[in-house]
This record gives sequence, structure tokens and C-alpha cells, in this order.
Amino acid sequence: MNAAEFQRARSPEAKRLREASILEAARALGRERGIRSVTLTDIAAAVGMHKSALLRYFETREEIFLLLTAEGWQEWSQALTERLRAEPDPGPAGVAQAFAATLAARGLFCDLLAHAPLTLERNVSLDVVRDFKLGTLAARVPITAVVRERLPALGERETGDLIATAVALAGALWQIATPPAEVAALYRSDPRLAHAVVEVEPRLARILTATITGMTHGQPQPRP
Amino acid sequence: MNAAEFQRARSPEAKRLREASILEAARALGRERGIRSVTLTDIAAAVGMHKSALLRYFETREEIFLLLTAEGWQEWSQALTERLRAEPDPGPAGVAQAFAATLAARGLFCDLLAHAPLTLERNVSLDVVRDFKLGTLAARVPITAVVRERLPALGERETGDLIATAVALAGALWQIATPPAEVAALYRSDPRLAHAVVEVEPRLARILTATITGMTHGQPQPRP
Repeated sequence: MNAAEFQRARSPEAKRLREASILEAARALGRERGIRSVTLTDIAAAVGMHKSALLRYFETREEIFLLLTAEGWQEWSQALTERLRAEPDPGPAGVAQAFAATLAARGLFCDLLAHAPLTLERNVSLDVVRDFKLGTLAARVPITAVVRERLPALGERETGDLIATAVALAGALWQIATPPAEVAALYRSDPRLAHAVVEVEPRLARILTATITGMTHGQPQPRP
Repeated sequence: MNAAEFQRARSPEAKRLREASILEAARALGRERGIRSVTLTDIAAAVGMHKSALLRYFETREEIFLLLTAEGWQEWSQALTERLRAEPDPGPAGVAQAFAATLAARGLFCDLLAHAPLTLERNVSLDVVRDFKLGTLAARVPITAVVRERLPALGERETGDLIATAVALAGALWQIATPPAEVAALYRSDPRLAHAVVEVEPRLARILTATITGMTHGQPQPRP
């Protein structure tokens, strides 16, 4: 679709199609170079629109990426839920592995998870923040249900803590595991920096296995 | 110190003093409004220098904040280590509480922890990244030693995972717990968003207690 066609579209269906192309361009650019370095101008150029025209569809680049984060939550929730439904008795290690594998396979989502509270939620209207929060809340519901079915020792609060830990760690570990090329080369060249090289999936699986195991062991409460 | 005095200073000692005032200004501004919104121009103004003069001391705002992050690691390491040395038998919950309390008491450090891999490490020279990584590595050494003394069941790798989990969660939870004022008001006003209100210390203590408990229980390994 070129800029002239964009200008002609007026119907709700045409508007919906434009929004979808804008989101798809942002998704592709974010996957390619990390969302941190994708500007609104880049997205507009990729979709063949002027930046001012794009601003009729979305308020800011942060709104676009926050919508992709909400969409990522929904898609990940479905993938994780299906995987756990297919395993009748995964145990703590199987549940941890399911979280780790489904998150590590979604680089763009991990990138978005790290940016959402830091930058994305901070440059959009309150309505956008509200919709985003309600969307992520809805995506947690089926995850909570299947996790508690598979691990009956976990309460509502433990399951909430588990999801929060998984997404916070996935976001942080993915950022650490995906440095700029020259920093990655530095890590490989200096043996003292070997600890800086991180593999997301095995480390996340290991940590979450410990966390879930502890949650199912009737852990002592932290002192007040 | 005013701009004229700054321009006269030439000795290594004067240079050191200037660097210290620049870092102190960045620290104060970061504490006040969150490091995300502090620019190099803000720091220069607070310290009474021109931005161009400030650039003779530091390459970028990211270098300044990365130095503060390294300093934060060292200071936190000392506080945590002292606290754990003073408790002869803390158990998993006591160790978790020591991590949670010392991190939650350091808002600026939590803010820096979240930004370091996302933005700070990405706009500085390789020498600055190398020094930063070696600094954080050194700060982990005494923490690892005292944790393994207090919890002999933890190996080197588990202790490394524990420290990584603690700092990643502290960074993420602090960001979530410290939204802009109008977003905080939204959370309080809509009961469906009650889950968005997070208290860093108790939640971090609870999750880390579970993680350490699981690590000390000879957890099953995640499946390959």
C-alpha cells in the first residue's frame, strides 16, 4: 500500500487495516534491531506514510509498542497454557521449563517486557495504560488456572509471584544476553568477563525451578 | 563552586573534585525525578557548568549513570555483606530478607539496575563497559562468600543465580512500584488495577525466600 492509497482510506475497515500495517512494521523493526532504537519516523517510513499521518492512528511510539506488549502477553499466555495442558504431570521443573522455553522463544516479547515499565507506560495517555493493564491481567488468568491445576500446592499469590518473576527475569536476562555487537565481542575476548555471557532459557529454567520448588515446600515466611 | 572557579581548576585534585561534583549532581537529580528524565544539560546546569565543559569529564550521560551504578553495586555489596555477617544463622528467609531490605532501601540503585542493560551500557565506550563489568564482578565476590558461609547448601552457580535474580527483580519491581503520579492515581482509583500496586520489599523477600528454599532442597534439574 502506498501513501496515496493510505490517504484515500476512510472506512472503519480501512482504518483497521492501516493500524494493522503500522503494528506489523513496528513488530518487524523491533525484531530486527531491538525496540529501543526504533523511532516513530522509522515506523512511518517502513509503512510508507508520513509521520504526521501516522499520528492520526497512534499517539506515540510508546503506544504502538505497548499495544505490541499487550498482544505479546495474550499470545504467550495461549502458548504457555497449551503447553502446560499437554503435560499432565510436569512437576516444578516441567512448569519452570515451560515458562523458560516459551519466553526465550519470544525475543521481541522479552524486549518489550523490559521496556514496558521503564519507558512504554510513561509516554501514553491514562486510557492506554488502563487498557494495557487490564489486558495483561486477562492474559494472566488462564496461566494462573493451568499452573494451579498442575501444581496444586501453589496458591493464588504464589502463582502471581511466579508469573511476575518469570517476566521480570525474562526481560532482564534477554537484555543482558543481547548486547550490541561490539560489547558481545568484548565479552568473548576477555576471560574475566565470561560471567557476562548469559543464556536466557537454561538460566531462567534453573531459577524458576528453584523458585517453584521453594513455593511448594511450605517455605518459612520472611521475618517482619 | 561557580563556573569561573571550575574554569580555573587544572590540577589532578581539582579534576577529581569536579568529577565528584558532577556525580553528586547526577545522583541528586536521579533520586529526585528518576534517572530516565535526567539529561546531560540538567546535570551541567545543577553543577554550574556549561554542557560542553562537562563533556571534558564524561563522554555521555550514560557514562555518568553507569559510574553511579558501579558505585551503587559496591556500596550495596558492603551493606548486604555487613548485615549478613551480623546474623549467624539467618536461614533462607533471613538471607532473602537481607537482600530485599538492602535493595528496597536503595531506590536510586534499583532505578539504575533496571536501566543499566537497557540503555546505560549502550551509549558508552567499550573501556567504560569493561570497567563497569569488572566492578560489578568484584562487588559480587564478598556477597557470594558470605551467602555461601550462611547457606552452605548453595553452590557457586546457585549464589550467582540468586544475585542475578535479586537485582533483576529489584530493578523491575521498583520501576513498577514507582509509576508517574497520574498513573499511580489511576491504579488507586480502579479496583481492577489493584494488582498493579506493588510493594518492593515484601514481594522481593517472599520470592527470594522461595528461590533460596528451592535451591537448598536439592531441586530436580529442568529437563533438557
